[in-house]
Amino acid sequence: MTDHYEDLEVGETYETGSYTVTKEEIIGFAEQFDPQPFHLDEEAAQESMFGELVASGLHTLCLSVRLFVTDIVDGEDGIANMGGLGMDDLRWHEPVRPDDTLRVRVEILEKTLSSRSDRGYVDFRRSVIDDADEEVMSIVSHNIVRRADAAD
Amino acid sequence: MTDHYEDLEVGETYETGSYTVTKEEIIGFAEQFDPQPFHLDEEAAQESMFGELVASGLHTLCLSVRLFVTDIVDGEDGIANMGGLGMDDLRWHEPVRPDDTLRVRVEILEKTLSSRSDRGYVDFRRSVIDDADEEVMSIVSHNIVRRADAAD
Repeated sequence: MTDHYEDLEVGETYETGSYTVTKEEIIGFAEQFDPQPFHLDEEAAQESMFGELVASGLHTLCLSVRLFVTDIVDGEDGIANMGGLGMDDLRWHEPVRPDDTLRVRVEILEKTLSSRSDRGYVDFRRSVIDDADEEVMSIVSHNIVRRADAAD
Repeated sequence: MTDHYEDLEVGETYETGSYTVTKEEIIGFAEQFDPQPFHLDEEAAQESMFGELVASGLHTLCLSVRLFVTDIVDGEDGIANMGGLGMDDLRWHEPVRPDDTLRVRVEILEKTLSSRSDRGYVDFRRSVIDDADEEVMSIVSHNIVRRADAAD
């Protein structure tokens, strides 16, 4: 069963499984998309404001989207997500370090009907939580979700 | 020479070089971070609201950060970026398709001194532009930039 726009309730919360990020992945991601010294090199990172190698915030965002897609959109219940409009309020609260284990808490913030009869807009607040139960990142995503009566 | 907080002026603009994204990269990125059918599979994408295979919006964001880092932060002038606080107003205006060539226009929106004497906060508006000169994505990033008198 997939949840459509009508099935989602404001205030509803979800939690994903967890993912442990390695030093190799942190460096590999940075080489591809965010090649700054504090994401690439342990020695250079010691001289940065972080004092140690930390994951690109963009990497944390990407890992949180993967967990959201695999465990919630494609999860047991599933969400009929048609695509994304944008995101707001992205904040990195704490750095993510090698071997940190992350999971994502999701809350449905708001629902708005579209003028198109097949869809509605759903805002999700997503928090990335580490093993110490600390929030390391938060964001609000604006998604387009299919309506049940438009579904095949 | 690297530009420090004092060297940056509100209203100043930059433009990066360009990058052409392939179908293989679009699918590879989606497999890693955003495994939804319209980013993974041409046939499934035909039945989506996009009607064809499109890049994950997160991929467009990642490519824009890479161009910002390589061509501006690490560019000829360079910016003494210490890290990021967050991002706002991320909007995907147009889908990105295989073989689209993207570049990034950057404008300095706002500067705010920090209470810490070694740094200031700089807001950058970043627009991703395609070959047809159309804006496909926009975002505001909040960065921490080192002050010159704090530099070694």
